[in-house]
Amino acid sequence: MANVRTLIFRQMFEHVSSTYTYLLACTATKEAVIIDPVLDTVDRDVSIIKEMHLKLKYAINTHVHADHITGSGMIKRRFTDVKSVISGKCGGKADHFVKHHDKLTFGNNELEVRETPGHTNGCLTYVLHNARMAFTGDALLIRGCGRTDFQEGSAARLYDSVHEQILSLPKDYLLYPAHDYKGLTATSVAEELLYNLRLTKSKEEFIKIMDNLKLAYPKQIDKAVPANLVCGIIEQPEFKPDK
Amino acid sequence: MANVRTLIFRQMFEHVSSTYTYLLACTATKEAVIIDPVLDTVDRDVSIIKEMHLKLKYAINTHVHADHITGSGMIKRRFTDVKSVISGKCGGKADHFVKHHDKLTFGNNELEVRETPGHTNGCLTYVLHNARMAFTGDALLIRGCGRTDFQEGSAARLYDSVHEQILSLPKDYLLYPAHDYKGLTATSVAEELLYNLRLTKSKEEFIKIMDNLKLAYPKQIDKAVPANLVCGIIEQPEFKPDK
Repeated sequence: MANVRTLIFRQMFEHVSSTYTYLLACTATKEAVIIDPVLDTVDRDVSIIKEMHLKLKYAINTHVHADHITGSGMIKRRFTDVKSVISGKCGGKADHFVKHHDKLTFGNNELEVRETPGHTNGCLTYVLHNARMAFTGDALLIRGCGRTDFQEGSAARLYDSVHEQILSLPKDYLLYPAHDYKGLTATSVAEELLYNLRLTKSKEEFIKIMDNLKLAYPKQIDKAVPANLVCGIIEQPEFKPDK
Repeated sequence: MANVRTLIFRQMFEHVSSTYTYLLACTATKEAVIIDPVLDTVDRDVSIIKEMHLKLKYAINTHVHADHITGSGMIKRRFTDVKSVISGKCGGKADHFVKHHDKLTFGNNELEVRETPGHTNGCLTYVLHNARMAFTGDALLIRGCGRTDFQEGSAARLYDSVHEQILSLPKDYLLYPAHDYKGLTATSVAEELLYNLRLTKSKEEFIKIMDNLKLAYPKQIDKAVPANLVCGIIEQPEFKPDK
């Protein structure tokens, strides 16, 4: 049959921080990765992974999040063979550091790592060419982008990252962000090239917009960033993984 | 290229009633349908439809919703050629009534109508065989199902509907519900056959579970059902479509 799916793909939403977590798996081998898991929804995600008999290989973060605690530490405790993955430039701890042009394979699928700094120094976008989709973290949001006013943020770097590494992909590629606040789930390169409210501007205008956002200090940042720099791992010596 | 998408697919979430709206379009012809639009998110949905230059053909409801007012009436005012679609058995008004085995085409795609009564008398599931997906409304939810204690609901009928019309589809078909309350976006026939908390039971046990749910009276029902029986159309003579 020509039309049988080769990729298992599940987008999952965490309501408090409006975060999207992505579960990707190879239909043939059942090898899987999870991108941007959230601590509060680890039980839900672990259930789905177990029910689908997936072999979770990597718990990946697009960056050191400031708005929620990553679920990757807890997921490592629930599935002991899982490796946590983050950018080597983020200043945090993880089992596996990745850099520009690295590849992460799961079964017959391969994620290409693209460095897209600007929201933070260690922001990564993961491109799954065989499914024509990319996971952009907070670098590119639907019709918007992540803020650039803390965590080594730089509007100029974000502008270059998004244009050089994300909006240069083929126009039909679907883009999946780490957040959306309006209930949208995906966009495409074609749409963002035309309609992104910030990134369709000139670099100078973009920098001006980003410098004048005057956003509130994130509620979770003082708790989330230190926890996420160690992949959310809190010492629980009595914890027994229930794999 | 073998891997170019032939279907545009967008799942969109309305936070107050936890409703999923689906936008489907043919990549080649741009003909589109929207399933279960919500009045409160019509502006968002209309923007996306316009930005993607889609030709919206049908505004479809899976059933007469009790938890939100359908957006189909307002969508008809924004795009004057759109036809509203609902089951002929729901007792409501619409431009186009459908019944079991009817087909709704948009470009090179075809939705098969399957009657799946039990939550309400006029509940429909729409199957898009070429994309191996189905839109189940409230008949089947992820690991659950719609309530059966009002609007001519019947646990016995719902049990038969789901088993005969939805869980009889090929196991890899993805199922997209009208609601989810845990941030999940999709499931599959295979998963629901194994893990649905209610529909994996015997018919007798299922009826007992459904008869003993003791759910609260839905907050929106007295406003939503009368509005939805006329497709949410409220007289606004001064309204000018901005098509």
